[in-house]
Amino acid sequence: MALNSAGYEVIHAAIRDLSDAELVDIDIIYGVDEFLNDILLHILELPNHKLKWLQVVSAGVNYLPLKELQAAGVQVTNASGVKAKPIAQTVMAFLLSFARALNTYEHIHTWNEQTDQYLIDELHIAVFGTGNIGKQVATYLNAFGADVIGISRSGRTSPEFMANYKIDDAPDALAKHKIDVVINTLPGTDETRHYFDDAFFTAQPLFAFINVGRGSTVAQRDLITALQDGQVRFAGLDVTSPEPLPDDNALWTFENVILTQHTSWGEHANKGRRFGKTDLFDIFFANAPTFITNQTLVKNAVDLTKGY
Amino acid sequence: MALNSAGYEVIHAAIRDLSDAELVDIDIIYGVDEFLNDILLHILELPNHKLKWLQVVSAGVNYLPLKELQAAGVQVTNASGVKAKPIAQTVMAFLLSFARALNTYEHIHTWNEQTDQYLIDELHIAVFGTGNIGKQVATYLNAFGADVIGISRSGRTSPEFMANYKIDDAPDALAKHKIDVVINTLPGTDETRHYFDDAFFTAQPLFAFINVGRGSTVAQRDLITALQDGQVRFAGLDVTSPEPLPDDNALWTFENVILTQHTSWGEHANKGRRFGKTDLFDIFFANAPTFITNQTLVKNAVDLTKGY
Repeated sequence: MALNSAGYEVIHAAIRDLSDAELVDIDIIYGVDEFLNDILLHILELPNHKLKWLQVVSAGVNYLPLKELQAAGVQVTNASGVKAKPIAQTVMAFLLSFARALNTYEHIHTWNEQTDQYLIDELHIAVFGTGNIGKQVATYLNAFGADVIGISRSGRTSPEFMANYKIDDAPDALAKHKIDVVINTLPGTDETRHYFDDAFFTAQPLFAFINVGRGSTVAQRDLITALQDGQVRFAGLDVTSPEPLPDDNALWTFENVILTQHTSWGEHANKGRRFGKTDLFDIFFANAPTFITNQTLVKNAVDLTKGY
Repeated sequence: MALNSAGYEVIHAAIRDLSDAELVDIDIIYGVDEFLNDILLHILELPNHKLKWLQVVSAGVNYLPLKELQAAGVQVTNASGVKAKPIAQTVMAFLLSFARALNTYEHIHTWNEQTDQYLIDELHIAVFGTGNIGKQVATYLNAFGADVIGISRSGRTSPEFMANYKIDDAPDALAKHKIDVVINTLPGTDETRHYFDDAFFTAQPLFAFINVGRGSTVAQRDLITALQDGQVRFAGLDVTSPEPLPDDNALWTFENVILTQHTSWGEHANKGRRFGKTDLFDIFFANAPTFITNQTLVKNAVDLTKGY
C-alpha cells in the first residue's frame, strides 16, 4: 500500500504487547477505541515518541484524552458516517416500536387490544445534531412523510430537514413546530453536557425521547423524573451514563424504556467486530496520501478543541 | 348528498335497534364489520328485502357470509388501501425491532452487549400479496435499500418490487433470492388457508416471519414448531387463529414473538374508532354515483367468489 512505498512499516499488533522501544516508533494508530487511553497517555510521555495520527473506530471521541493529544500535536480522524445507516435504523426501530405500540404489546400476554398507535406521519420530530447520523435519520423519516426539523450549533440549512435552527433557538422551535419526538445525535462535549435536563423536559410533553448521541448530553435523573411524571411517554436509549449502566439503575425498570446498550452501530456483516473491514479503511485511505505528503488529513478530521 | 337527491333516505342508526319493517327497507349498509353477520343473514331471510350494497370497514372480508350475499345479489366494497399506511408501518416496526435487536434487549435487564444486529439492507425480503398493503410495505423497504420480491396469485409485475412471481413459483423464488424475511399480506381465502405450513417453514430458515394478512393463512402449530426448532428466528404477528388468541396459546410464551392483536390498522387520528372519518367515505362516495345510476360499483368492489 501507499504507506509501505512511502517508507512506513505496517504492522498488525495487540498494542499492549509492544515494548516502549516499539511504541516510541509509532506514527499512526489505526483502530483506536475507548480502551486505549492508558497506552496513548503512556506513548505521549515517552521522549521522542512519533505519534501523529489516530484513526478511531467511533464517531464520538469524547473518551479520548483530547487536551493531551492536542498539546502533543496528534491529529485524530473519526468514523463519522461509517455508522450512520445502522444507527439511523436503530432510531427508526425505536420510533416505530413506540408509535406502532410494539413496545406496549411486548408486555401484554393476554388479548387486550390497544388502539393508541401513531403513524410516523402524525408525529412532529426534532433531530438534534445534523451531521451524518442526523441527516440519515431525517432521510428515513422523510420516506414516511414525517415533518422533521434539524437543530445544530450553526443552524445551517440542510435539505433533509423542513427547517433548521440553531441550538440557542431550540426552545422556540420546539414550541412552534409542536414537537413531540426528540431524537438526539449530539456528540458529548462540555457544551452539550446535561443539555437535556429538567428545564428541557418540563417545557413540553414528549411522545418519545430517543438518544443515540452520548449519555452525557442527558441529565439522567431528570429524564427518569420526566418518565415517572409522564412528561416523556417512551424513551429509546442507546447511550446512558455511565456505561455499562449499573443493574440498580431505575432505567432498567421502565416498561416504556428500551436500552440497546450502545450497540446501534451493529450490522450483521460486522458481527462481533467493532467496525467494518471496508468502511473505516475508506476513511483511512482517503487521508493516507495527504498525510504522507504533508501530514494533513482531509476526511473526518476531528477538531480537538470542539471535541467532534 | 347525492343519495338524498336520488331519493334515498340516509339514517345513522344502531342496526340492532331497527325493526324488521325498517331492516327490510335498507338498500345500503355503510360501516359493516365482523360483528353483524347475524343481522345480515336475518335481513337476507326477510321477504322482499332490498339489500344491495355493503361497505365494510376492513380490507379482508373473509368473516362475511359470502355465499349467502352472492346468492342474494348483494355487492360488497372493502376498505382496501385505507389502512395500507398504518399496517405497513407496523410491518416496518416488526422488522426493525427484530433487525436492530430491540426485541432482544426488551428482555435483558442488565448490561450485556449483543452484536447481532442486521441492517434492513442486509436482508432478502419476500412480500406475499402485492395489493395496497404489500406495495406500501415494499415502498418503505425500498427507502432502506432492501431487496424486495413480490409474490401474488397473478405474478403481475409491479414497480415497487425488484421481481414478481406467481405464488405457484414461490418455492423456487424464495430459494433463488435467498429469502430470509417473509412478510404476509395475503387475504384469508380457501386458497390461502394454511399456506404457511410445515413444508413452507422447513424449506428455508427465516430470520423473520411477519403476518399482517389473516391468521388462517398460517398452520399455526407448524409455525410454533418452526419457532421452537429455530427455523423461524423472530415472528411478528398482527393476526392469529383464533382471535382473540386464548391465554394458554404457546405463542404468548415466546420472547422472539410479538403479537399486536390485530391492531396494525391503528392511527392516532382515529384513536378508539374502527375506521377513519374521511378515508372510508372517499371509497363510498367514489361508488355512490354509479350505484345510483345502474347499481354498479367502481372502486374496491369485492369478488365474492374469490373472497377479496
